[in-house]
Amino acid sequence: MKKPYKKPEVGDIVEIVVNGKKENGRLLESYDRGVLLLKLDNGYNIGFKKEDISELKVVSTPPPTTADDGKLKLSGKKPIVDFYLTGGTISSKLDPKTGGNTWLIDGRELFKVYPEIFEMCDVRIKSPFMKASEDMSNKDWIRLAKLIGKSLNDDQVKGVIVSHGTDFLHYTASALGFMLGKLNKPVVLTYSQRSSDRGSSDSRLNLVCSAHAALSDIAEVILVGHANSDDDYCYMLQGNKVRKMHTSRRDTFRPINCKPFGKVNAEGKVETFRDFNKRNKNKVEVNAFFDDRVVLLKFYPGQNPEILDYYRKKGYKGIIIEMSGLGHVISEGKNNWIPKLKEVIGKGMFVYAAAQTIYGRLDPFVYSPGRKLQDIGVVFLGDMLSETAFVKLGWVLGKKEWRGSVSTKNKMLENVNGEFNKRLGLDEW
Amino acid sequence: MKKPYKKPEVGDIVEIVVNGKKENGRLLESYDRGVLLLKLDNGYNIGFKKEDISELKVVSTPPPTTADDGKLKLSGKKPIVDFYLTGGTISSKLDPKTGGNTWLIDGRELFKVYPEIFEMCDVRIKSPFMKASEDMSNKDWIRLAKLIGKSLNDDQVKGVIVSHGTDFLHYTASALGFMLGKLNKPVVLTYSQRSSDRGSSDSRLNLVCSAHAALSDIAEVILVGHANSDDDYCYMLQGNKVRKMHTSRRDTFRPINCKPFGKVNAEGKVETFRDFNKRNKNKVEVNAFFDDRVVLLKFYPGQNPEILDYYRKKGYKGIIIEMSGLGHVISEGKNNWIPKLKEVIGKGMFVYAAAQTIYGRLDPFVYSPGRKLQDIGVVFLGDMLSETAFVKLGWVLGKKEWRGSVSTKNKMLENVNGEFNKRLGLDEW
Repeated sequence: MKKPYKKPEVGDIVEIVVNGKKENGRLLESYDRGVLLLKLDNGYNIGFKKEDISELKVVSTPPPTTADDGKLKLSGKKPIVDFYLTGGTISSKLDPKTGGNTWLIDGRELFKVYPEIFEMCDVRIKSPFMKASEDMSNKDWIRLAKLIGKSLNDDQVKGVIVSHGTDFLHYTASALGFMLGKLNKPVVLTYSQRSSDRGSSDSRLNLVCSAHAALSDIAEVILVGHANSDDDYCYMLQGNKVRKMHTSRRDTFRPINCKPFGKVNAEGKVETFRDFNKRNKNKVEVNAFFDDRVVLLKFYPGQNPEILDYYRKKGYKGIIIEMSGLGHVISEGKNNWIPKLKEVIGKGMFVYAAAQTIYGRLDPFVYSPGRKLQDIGVVFLGDMLSETAFVKLGWVLGKKEWRGSVSTKNKMLENVNGEFNKRLGLDEW
Repeated sequence: MKKPYKKPEVGDIVEIVVNGKKENGRLLESYDRGVLLLKLDNGYNIGFKKEDISELKVVSTPPPTTADDGKLKLSGKKPIVDFYLTGGTISSKLDPKTGGNTWLIDGRELFKVYPEIFEMCDVRIKSPFMKASEDMSNKDWIRLAKLIGKSLNDDQVKGVIVSHGTDFLHYTASALGFMLGKLNKPVVLTYSQRSSDRGSSDSRLNLVCSAHAALSDIAEVILVGHANSDDDYCYMLQGNKVRKMHTSRRDTFRPINCKPFGKVNAEGKVETFRDFNKRNKNKVEVNAFFDDRVVLLKFYPGQNPEILDYYRKKGYKGIIIEMSGLGHVISEGKNNWIPKLKEVIGKGMFVYAAAQTIYGRLDPFVYSPGRKLQDIGVVFLGDMLSETAFVKLGWVLGKKEWRGSVSTKNKMLENVNGEFNKRLGLDEW
């Protein structure tokens, strides 16, 4: 390999000649010393064996983004976006020592992998914790809501991005929607299904689209991710009406019982599909509380209703039951749930019904067992996702004023953040 | 209303003049004496006020299908199909007294509502029980498997249809697939989302297509139902890779992690999409057993793993956990599931992982917690649906020879009835 005129640095746009063929791209940090890693214009990271490279020249060098102390420097000219790194695959890179994934721990590492977003905005990196999302709890949601609330109430900040693990991202999105009242700016959550340092990672499109969404006028909690398995554009999904629906596909997050807010591509073209809360001058009200004495329970055939006793005796205050069909449980024979539900409700437990089918809306009025459930005090949550219902119930019970049986029910049935879609038609999935 | 020449009877093809306009259709039993109910050629049931009808004449009368004692008479010329009425919306009709749904209790009633299938085949009606599917348990699956086994081993019988409630139809379909070994003929399960006596019920297309499927060469447990929200054709879905995905849509059953066997329309045009087990001369082996000491558990954020102790102490032998992502649970902090899983596995409980995302395939090798779960003895079930896994585990534990820890695992990982799709690609949903 010929010596280049300028020593290329991570972030430089370079041109190389590999086996006689020219390739252009941005130089990334490579974890293999024998490989030169380029991010091509199409977003793919490709590694080239150094021995195959006959020429290498620096085409351009981005303006400096790091100060002398190694910290990221703000241009002072671009819009400020607060970027919360919380962990997950998107914040991980392959550890060459173990072969497993390890965390990208600071903004400089982030810059090395995603240089584009630093050109669009002045990114202020925050990392309150680094976790896989399945390890996160309501305490993390509360911490994040408080921090993001501060960012949103900072006049300098144009929007917020949160990078997050995929597994339970929809729970965090739902929690932030309830905890950040009177939202004034976009709060964008994003992810990747393959770690960012791998070729064909989905992170680049998701992050660039997230930056565009964070600068948009959509003042909502938005989950941004691949709309399909191509790398064309992302959906902007409503945070509490979305679910991880595939173990590995990049378009794993699907809108449930509503349309996406819209779509956005890497060039920043935003197209909206429906109404949304517009960017405004509100002061965000941070309602960051949660009572973790709540349960999410999936009902299955022949299930013994004694499980309700277990949770009541353990001190749980409320339960979301994923019922079958339009809202059913066993209503005859030895495992009849109706008497047991009546009993635990009588002893002060709050019982809510959500749809096990995921899509569609509960309706207690079609069959007599549904009517009976409603008569004994089970509250039906229409088209609200069970996961959203779980988060909402913990949130509602977390506030003293909403903790009475009537006030809890009223709050659960109030459309706080679009968790009910009254306009849902039969045709929508 | 003019007196017709022949007194029209239920099942007759009639022509009426309503407010000057001609309508043709098959006369159905009407539960309102002031209304004449017709099934039009497009499958819709429409009621006309008798006072608006100026003419009524019988166009044709189907050959008699009832014997003098009121029982259905077989023609002796058409293929025999055994039809199991088990309950559900498809077997219900509106009770004019209560406004609720009540059961269609015998074959004559069925004939009044679905005359078409009696023209295609000699239908032998069986009704072992009438239940909403959420009230069914493994005892009903066993009973049904034994009865259907007899039908299938009767040389006269061409195929079997089971009409069933929608809520947990996919569980029954899965159970029959495991319990009916060496399947020789089609076993078709079908349903409706609106009761059969209502205008715009989805039952007509589902039933006619089911009859065609029952006469086809596909010797599989097939779930037949609307492929989309139109009334054009039905899918023939694999019974253990299907799930009710919408509370109310007629195309609620979706194929999960595999293609449908094919599609079929009301005219009997069958188009297959993939391999299937062909009609054959096997004697069906009825393996109708189930150990109900099995649990299906959905994992959620912050969930306390003590629930595993509860089930173990209650005497449950096996548990299917719907894990997040590629197969994860909390693996740090106070609610770390790993030590508790290790403990209950050490005490003899069988723990299996299925995908909470529904779509896709588990993979314990991508992240270290997945590898750890596998190390402590959690068995990952790939792309098998959690509902299918629950049924399969109960079935496996129901047989003494398969109850040891190694034999259970081997049987759970054996592809008994196509519950694993090894060819599943990333592109399939």
